[in-house]
Amino acid sequence: MKSFDPATLHIKDLHALLLGSIGPRPIALASTISKNGEHNLSPFSFFNVFSANPPLLIFSPARRGTDNTTKHTYENIKEVPEVVINIVNYDITYQMVLSSANYPKGVSEIEKAGFTALDSDLIKPKRIAESPVQFECKVNQVIELSDGPASGNLIMAEVIKIHVNEEYLDTNNKIDQKKIDLVGRMGGNTYVRAHGANLFEITRPNDANLGVDSLSEDIRLSKILTGNDLARLANAEAYPDETDVNEYKLIELSSIFIEHENDANLLEISLHKKAKSLIEDGNIEDAWKSLLAFNN
Amino acid sequence: MKSFDPATLHIKDLHALLLGSIGPRPIALASTISKNGEHNLSPFSFFNVFSANPPLLIFSPARRGTDNTTKHTYENIKEVPEVVINIVNYDITYQMVLSSANYPKGVSEIEKAGFTALDSDLIKPKRIAESPVQFECKVNQVIELSDGPASGNLIMAEVIKIHVNEEYLDTNNKIDQKKIDLVGRMGGNTYVRAHGANLFEITRPNDANLGVDSLSEDIRLSKILTGNDLARLANAEAYPDETDVNEYKLIELSSIFIEHENDANLLEISLHKKAKSLIEDGNIEDAWKSLLAFNN
Repeated sequence: MKSFDPATLHIKDLHALLLGSIGPRPIALASTISKNGEHNLSPFSFFNVFSANPPLLIFSPARRGTDNTTKHTYENIKEVPEVVINIVNYDITYQMVLSSANYPKGVSEIEKAGFTALDSDLIKPKRIAESPVQFECKVNQVIELSDGPASGNLIMAEVIKIHVNEEYLDTNNKIDQKKIDLVGRMGGNTYVRAHGANLFEITRPNDANLGVDSLSEDIRLSKILTGNDLARLANAEAYPDETDVNEYKLIELSSIFIEHENDANLLEISLHKKAKSLIEDGNIEDAWKSLLAFNN
Repeated sequence: MKSFDPATLHIKDLHALLLGSIGPRPIALASTISKNGEHNLSPFSFFNVFSANPPLLIFSPARRGTDNTTKHTYENIKEVPEVVINIVNYDITYQMVLSSANYPKGVSEIEKAGFTALDSDLIKPKRIAESPVQFECKVNQVIELSDGPASGNLIMAEVIKIHVNEEYLDTNNKIDQKKIDLVGRMGGNTYVRAHGANLFEITRPNDANLGVDSLSEDIRLSKILTGNDLARLANAEAYPDETDVNEYKLIELSSIFIEHENDANLLEISLHKKAKSLIEDGNIEDAWKSLLAFNN
């Protein structure tokens, strides 16, 4: 491990380490309005949901690291404490990035980026028609963390209306994670598209799971099984019973036992490999049988 | 669009809408300690970085929506205001999920999930050796948003030491986004792995870009070009000059012009398709030449 002390790191390097390791970050495409009625649109990845009750989103239009100036989004919210947070999916990613250019105050990024403005129901800032989900928010509080360069300004935004493109809603009014195609921000200029084979499901763990600490040493210290594999095994609530292990050994594992009948070491490796492949298929029950068959 | 009023939605449905649309969310695997020295480890995706100066991370161990109880992580931080935020990559994802089981207070999730505990340099909670980046933090403030179920508790954690597994550092001490293999949380039980072909790069936009609003109508209203395509075209600072367009037309586009010499409509569609394919290859200059050739 290499260790860094934030107090002695250059802010630019500290910034890069934080952004390179805390990700993927959701993107808020924030629409605001000045007291003179000038619209602004800008994306922020210092953003997330933090509570459902009250429904609170926080994002941070930080002070610029280069010249310590503040952003139009921050200035507008200090004048008119309202914001539409538009969600970004792949279809509008390049438009979102274009809206982040430093245009002079008063230029509408909504037009420059080729978006369509929609009136909000309850607040003055516009919604972005092309965005799959739009949150109308009132700003309860702004917390300025310091007045130095790269300092965050926390915008505490309470959701007062939600608009969802029905294309992405399933029959239970849930948002279809395979369809919405969300995009996250990472370090440097890297983005990630959340779709296709990179999506995967893990159900909540069993509260009465075995725990990795209870696994026998030959399994815990396996040269074949990874930490992820052990965790999936340890999520079981009980071991398969001996009769089932023996039956599986006779029917499914007989060729492995015959092949390695004179070499316990190779037999164990072979059974661990079989178990690993079953784990990857989500078949934890049979993976356990393969591992327990060794000493049965 | 379908619209929802948070005030009349069931909290469970509101929670699902927020989590299904705000993503991918980075994951904080938070290590804390009680005043009696009991260790706790638990993952939270209401988490992000919000400032580099001071280096501030926020996460929210919210009150449970089911029975309004608080989590051990929150209770520990109220007793000992320190936390190690361990970053989660694919290699430790199943271990991270296992640590989220509801174990009785005092049970160490570090051991149950099969992690290795490391002493921190400056605080009492342990680091997780298997995590690629570990942030030692002191907690400056805890903001309780309300005392109702599913209410957030904002943990304002200032980074005082950073440990990075050197495997993921490039020669400039930046974290290699292709290597670290971060995992984000999405709606329901869905996670996303940020690696491989789902990663893409977009450089900062030109501040003096053309803007989508300045594009001619035949391009802006193209049936072939999407919003993303228009944004990439509009990010140019200037159009290619006429001589270059004519040369490109004679050399690269001659077969298209010959094929459709009697049908301006098909010619335009064909040139837009050519432009779209060039945009996807990142060749914006030639995409512009293909589009401008139509009226040249």
